[in-house]
Amino acid sequence: MNYSMVLYILGHILKFESAFLTLPALVGLLYREKEGIPFLLVAVLCLVLGLFLTRKRPASSTLYTREGFVTVALSWIIMSIFGAIPFVLSGDIPSYVDALFETISGFTTTGASILTEVESLSRASLFWRSFTHWIGGMGVFVFIMAILPLMGGSTMNLMKAESPGPSVSKLVPHVKDTAKILYGIYIAITLSEIVLLCAFGMPLFDAVTTSFGTTGTGGFGIKNDSIAGYSPALQIIVTIFMILSGVNYTFYFCLLSRRIKDAFRIEEVRWYFFIILASAGVIAYNTSRMYPTVSETLRHAFFQVGSIITTTGYATTDFNLWPPLSQTILVILMFIGACAGSTGGGMKVSRLVIFFKSLRKELSLIIHPREIRKIRMDGHVIEHATLRSANVFLVIYFVTLLSSTLLISVDEFDFTTNFTAVVSALNNIGPGLNLVGPTQNFSIFSVFSKFVLMFDMLAGRLELFPLMILLMPSTWRKK
Amino acid sequence: MNYSMVLYILGHILKFESAFLTLPALVGLLYREKEGIPFLLVAVLCLVLGLFLTRKRPASSTLYTREGFVTVALSWIIMSIFGAIPFVLSGDIPSYVDALFETISGFTTTGASILTEVESLSRASLFWRSFTHWIGGMGVFVFIMAILPLMGGSTMNLMKAESPGPSVSKLVPHVKDTAKILYGIYIAITLSEIVLLCAFGMPLFDAVTTSFGTTGTGGFGIKNDSIAGYSPALQIIVTIFMILSGVNYTFYFCLLSRRIKDAFRIEEVRWYFFIILASAGVIAYNTSRMYPTVSETLRHAFFQVGSIITTTGYATTDFNLWPPLSQTILVILMFIGACAGSTGGGMKVSRLVIFFKSLRKELSLIIHPREIRKIRMDGHVIEHATLRSANVFLVIYFVTLLSSTLLISVDEFDFTTNFTAVVSALNNIGPGLNLVGPTQNFSIFSVFSKFVLMFDMLAGRLELFPLMILLMPSTWRKK
Repeated sequence: MNYSMVLYILGHILKFESAFLTLPALVGLLYREKEGIPFLLVAVLCLVLGLFLTRKRPASSTLYTREGFVTVALSWIIMSIFGAIPFVLSGDIPSYVDALFETISGFTTTGASILTEVESLSRASLFWRSFTHWIGGMGVFVFIMAILPLMGGSTMNLMKAESPGPSVSKLVPHVKDTAKILYGIYIAITLSEIVLLCAFGMPLFDAVTTSFGTTGTGGFGIKNDSIAGYSPALQIIVTIFMILSGVNYTFYFCLLSRRIKDAFRIEEVRWYFFIILASAGVIAYNTSRMYPTVSETLRHAFFQVGSIITTTGYATTDFNLWPPLSQTILVILMFIGACAGSTGGGMKVSRLVIFFKSLRKELSLIIHPREIRKIRMDGHVIEHATLRSANVFLVIYFVTLLSSTLLISVDEFDFTTNFTAVVSALNNIGPGLNLVGPTQNFSIFSVFSKFVLMFDMLAGRLELFPLMILLMPSTWRKK
Repeated sequence: MNYSMVLYILGHILKFESAFLTLPALVGLLYREKEGIPFLLVAVLCLVLGLFLTRKRPASSTLYTREGFVTVALSWIIMSIFGAIPFVLSGDIPSYVDALFETISGFTTTGASILTEVESLSRASLFWRSFTHWIGGMGVFVFIMAILPLMGGSTMNLMKAESPGPSVSKLVPHVKDTAKILYGIYIAITLSEIVLLCAFGMPLFDAVTTSFGTTGTGGFGIKNDSIAGYSPALQIIVTIFMILSGVNYTFYFCLLSRRIKDAFRIEEVRWYFFIILASAGVIAYNTSRMYPTVSETLRHAFFQVGSIITTTGYATTDFNLWPPLSQTILVILMFIGACAGSTGGGMKVSRLVIFFKSLRKELSLIIHPREIRKIRMDGHVIEHATLRSANVFLVIYFVTLLSSTLLISVDEFDFTTNFTAVVSALNNIGPGLNLVGPTQNFSIFSVFSKFVLMFDMLAGRLELFPLMILLMPSTWRKK
């Protein structure tokens, strides 16, 4: 293990976190809140530590795959550990465990909160909660790579560990350029949403935080009733931007490079839109008796479907009151998740497409045993290693899901609550059903269960492998 | 598709069913019940149809893999369709859909009932319910093969489709001898249980039907309170035989051939016993405050764990009232299931062992990328095809699970009820939680949902592939 390089990178992470923390400090200054000061203090702390760790570039900057995974996992943990401190110092979240839960929930773009009441929080804290979504959405390493030519030949191994989806696709030959393009698109989408929300009457602070939560597919709101209190027009804008944020960014890159046909030929994107339309259609039909007009029914159906499939977690209505069919559709959407290469979580549509294709192949092998058939996606043959790792992903996924449900059931809540709490954490969604429904929160759980759920949120955001590698004893054994 | 051979085999199945049906007819005669007559009538009907279909041996007796799968799937459906008729004719189950549900639940050894009250049934019907478990437990094709040198070179393809577990292991070189040994052990276990139960004071009729349900891992009881009304000694005997019935029969074959060490070296069997001990231990601790004595707590814990992991479904206590941790353990045991090569259902312990081994391999590949490592079980390298098909199994399994939950949620019951009803049907267990808990039954569901659950029971018993092949359009397409 190249410890000095791992520490060097962690130092850089802390320097970046220091920069991130100055923003809520500025917000505090702007609104003349004393709660801004702790953000400044922790920013200074991170800067000092970061400078210390990066004072000397290590002799060897090579990171092997496992070191890439370990570095990314540790970086996310470190970011959360420091990012939680201002919540405690400002008094907004007195318990450190709760603050850590909230911060991990923020960075992993889960949006599950332990707060029973958010409107009493300081502006600085509210801003920081939403801003963690925005940083975590596209990923901090993508951000670093867009700015610094930091890690030499190791960049791909870090990208691999942080990027969602069954395989990493570089848009352009250089990782640095890919990272710049991704953040360019990300910023453009975020700014468009802020402008549109302001244009339709949302106050600037609300527009900024809501947009961070939307484009990062996070889901922390600054109102107790999430998005339900805003006008229908604003809800529709948020719906559209949630759905856009769940699209594979390759789609936008194709559009930008004027390869319109290529963009609309991406199989994952087609399935993604098909699933959204079908689910919202069935839910609208199923819930029609609950709302006075067809347009209101459709608005709530599309909002909730968009919010859950992209794993954002905003709500405009309490879907705990929806009929079981609609609830089950939402639970299935929680598993599916957004597109790979987007800011959304879940299993990813493309992984499901791969599963269905390998299923069809296996069945067709039984029917025609001598047939030779390769699994293709978007015209390319899917590599054997991608297939195998997608399968192993599924195994870890269900092992984590069932064992976490088991662990948190010591708290003695009902099965639906426990199961959907874990599904929600592992897929980085936010709300679940019953006691963790959209109008409820995660404060009910014990400290032990909160740590289980924090693990699930991180495991889900980093797609399981990095945290598993971190936990494997052989990672730390000397050869 | 070799239609004439498929029909020929279905004819044989009907002849065997005719023979099976004479047993409940005899029971009816013994107890002087008029309800025995319908069983005789249907036996005659099956015999006539069977003789008609087998009047001429087809020119080609070759069955390809897909034809093997189709034949097995159709056989189980045909057996259930005819096996359900006597329930209706005798008036014991007036609705044919309910009778079909009960019969499929019987043959697939699920044990989920649509009856709110079983004690008013005729002895003939009670016997038939339990006897279907016994036939379905080891499998009707294994039975046919033990007796008839029927299908020439196609036998392996039929065994493959009917036998549980990730790969078919022949105990001895000839399929026929393997089948004879399996049924020999099966009969020996069943008779031992009957004798022991009678010795400890259970009436003969109860002992026979209870033993059929135990060794077939079915779970239909002849009392409304399942096994709860019998003495502790009888409950302990049933516990032991349930657990023994979930063991891979290779274990007994090793014991019989005096390879004691080999028997105890089978990894799957070790894991199976470990899981039972660990689960029962935790549940006993978790439920200790519910029962007056330690021995009663342990008795209920081991009974319920043995009943659920072997997918039998008997109950001695209402585990719907257990704390969530114990309930969650039961739900996880539902997924795990018994050993491959036993009469139990579920995913099978060996499949899980394979999953964990491939998981460890994949993670270790990230840590040591150049390492070459084969997955071994009991010292043998697991073939690539077995691994791949186990992975595809997992995919179909969860697709079936989630889509069935979605379909039956139109009935508007709660999520836990729907989810555990499907888990219970798909793993051939019997009871679930909430409205389908051990003291409840499946009569609440609509006809549509009953058909979904019937499909799940058959898909679970035949391990998904045969029913999928049956549904694939390309199976029926001419080349």
